[in-house]
Amino acid sequence: MTEHSLWRFSRALHRAINERQLGDIELMLDDEVEWAIYGPIDLFSFFGSRRGKAAVLEVIKQIGDNLRVHRFDRESIMLGTDSAASMLRYSLTALDADKPISLRIAHFAQFKAGKLTSFRMLVDSFDLVEQTVGYPIHLPRIAV
Amino acid sequence: MTEHSLWRFSRALHRAINERQLGDIELMLDDEVEWAIYGPIDLFSFFGSRRGKAAVLEVIKQIGDNLRVHRFDRESIMLGTDSAASMLRYSLTALDADKPISLRIAHFAQFKAGKLTSFRMLVDSFDLVEQTVGYPIHLPRIAV
Repeated sequence: MTEHSLWRFSRALHRAINERQLGDIELMLDDEVEWAIYGPIDLFSFFGSRRGKAAVLEVIKQIGDNLRVHRFDRESIMLGTDSAASMLRYSLTALDADKPISLRIAHFAQFKAGKLTSFRMLVDSFDLVEQTVGYPIHLPRIAV
Repeated sequence: MTEHSLWRFSRALHRAINERQLGDIELMLDDEVEWAIYGPIDLFSFFGSRRGKAAVLEVIKQIGDNLRVHRFDRESIMLGTDSAASMLRYSLTALDADKPISLRIAHFAQFKAGKLTSFRMLVDSFDLVEQTVGYPIHLPRIAV
């Protein structure tokens, strides 16, 4: 039984971020890969959409320049033949401030012949913003 | 071929929110259902975790008291035998301010014998906060 592409992708991505080794992830990216991390691009310039292997490699390198992954717990997961979705809780460090960040994300990934063709990620962005700026942002209560 | 529980759940949920008809969704909730919407509970008190049919019915009613769903587009979806995950883009109105809100969410759902046993939802919360308070929140740029 062949290992699901998600596990190879996950290892390669974390290796690229934590060890700055882009070789494994480069082999896994389809030339026309579509990539999006939905979140406040004003805060982290590596949020947003990218298209194509070169642009996605660049954005992964940028993530590695800014964050370190300490651990992640997969809370929910679905695996299809060529697809995967999961919800994860990450423990990260923002490198410039040496600040711990705890973050929940959800992602959807599509593979074709073992290569990543589509990746969409959503983050609990308000939580991320508060942890990153380091102070609570005052909110009016809308719903009672 | 039986219809996937996700479709029944989706119809029942939207009916509960938009028409205040809780009958369909009540039939679909397992007595011990676990429910979580991850986001700033300071802003919307219906964010957070709930457990059990009564608590989840109450929170769905609360969502209906505050929001109206205009449309939603399912951007990614995965269906398993008794599970489903999707990423959706919603057009909503916040009722008190009659304010349009556009929001991306991801959810993971588990069913058992046609009843919802687990539901976890993540929202692009910073985007939601800015749209709800109605002004941009200044952010320092962390990553360049």
